[in-house]
Amino acid sequence: MRNGATYLTECGLRPSVQRLAIYNYMVTHPTHPTADEIFEALRDSIPTLSKTTVYNTLKLFVAHGVIDEVFIDRTSERFDGNTLLHAHFLCNCCGAIIDTPIENPERVNDSLPHGASLNKTQLLYFGTCEKCLNQPNNN
Amino acid sequence: MRNGATYLTECGLRPSVQRLAIYNYMVTHPTHPTADEIFEALRDSIPTLSKTTVYNTLKLFVAHGVIDEVFIDRTSERFDGNTLLHAHFLCNCCGAIIDTPIENPERVNDSLPHGASLNKTQLLYFGTCEKCLNQPNNN
Repeated sequence: MRNGATYLTECGLRPSVQRLAIYNYMVTHPTHPTADEIFEALRDSIPTLSKTTVYNTLKLFVAHGVIDEVFIDRTSERFDGNTLLHAHFLCNCCGAIIDTPIENPERVNDSLPHGASLNKTQLLYFGTCEKCLNQPNNN
Repeated sequence: MRNGATYLTECGLRPSVQRLAIYNYMVTHPTHPTADEIFEALRDSIPTLSKTTVYNTLKLFVAHGVIDEVFIDRTSERFDGNTLLHAHFLCNCCGAIIDTPIENPERVNDSLPHGASLNKTQLLYFGTCEKCLNQPNNN
């Protein structure tokens, strides 16, 4: 795992204790957490932390390219510590968000409008995961 | 353009006057409108229409596969009358959402998790459109 303090500094951000804790949580929990989930996980170890600080820090991280927002869940704002191109699969049955690798990024990016410059790609799948398909009550 | 009344019936929905007006607006305005935009466009011709009815009708259309939701704009809920697979490009400069064709859908869908069944794919691009790149103040 890369050094969080170095990475935040490289991204133009002062690596405060709170920012580092939030960043480290993001990269060790590839569950696309919400700000509320991160707050609940860190509040005991950082009593001065507030929900607002967590949310504002996440948005600051997104603005500086430290993390990404995942647009797959309309009902809650989710964040992703993995900023490398990959696809997201949302299971409509259990709600799990599954990361999947994109083997050939150039294939995914070949539908760009003429003359446009690309900053970010998101490939989202919606369906039913293998686990839910194999549930006895789904047969 | 396909017949709206027939299509709504095929999708399991009664083709009321309000539903037909909303459906026809969607398929003649490929601008990914919000419920508010549709309400403003139709309120003069249908005085009994309410914002809530427009929104609930759009969500009902999505549930029945008549239209799609577009997840590209975090700040507003946008809808799309074109349910065929295509990509969306959001210009970070002017806010335009541009449709682009996907030449090889199987290439885009080859990152699906093992054993999962696919219901819907969304391919989203974020960047700067050709028009904004060619603005004098962007040079």
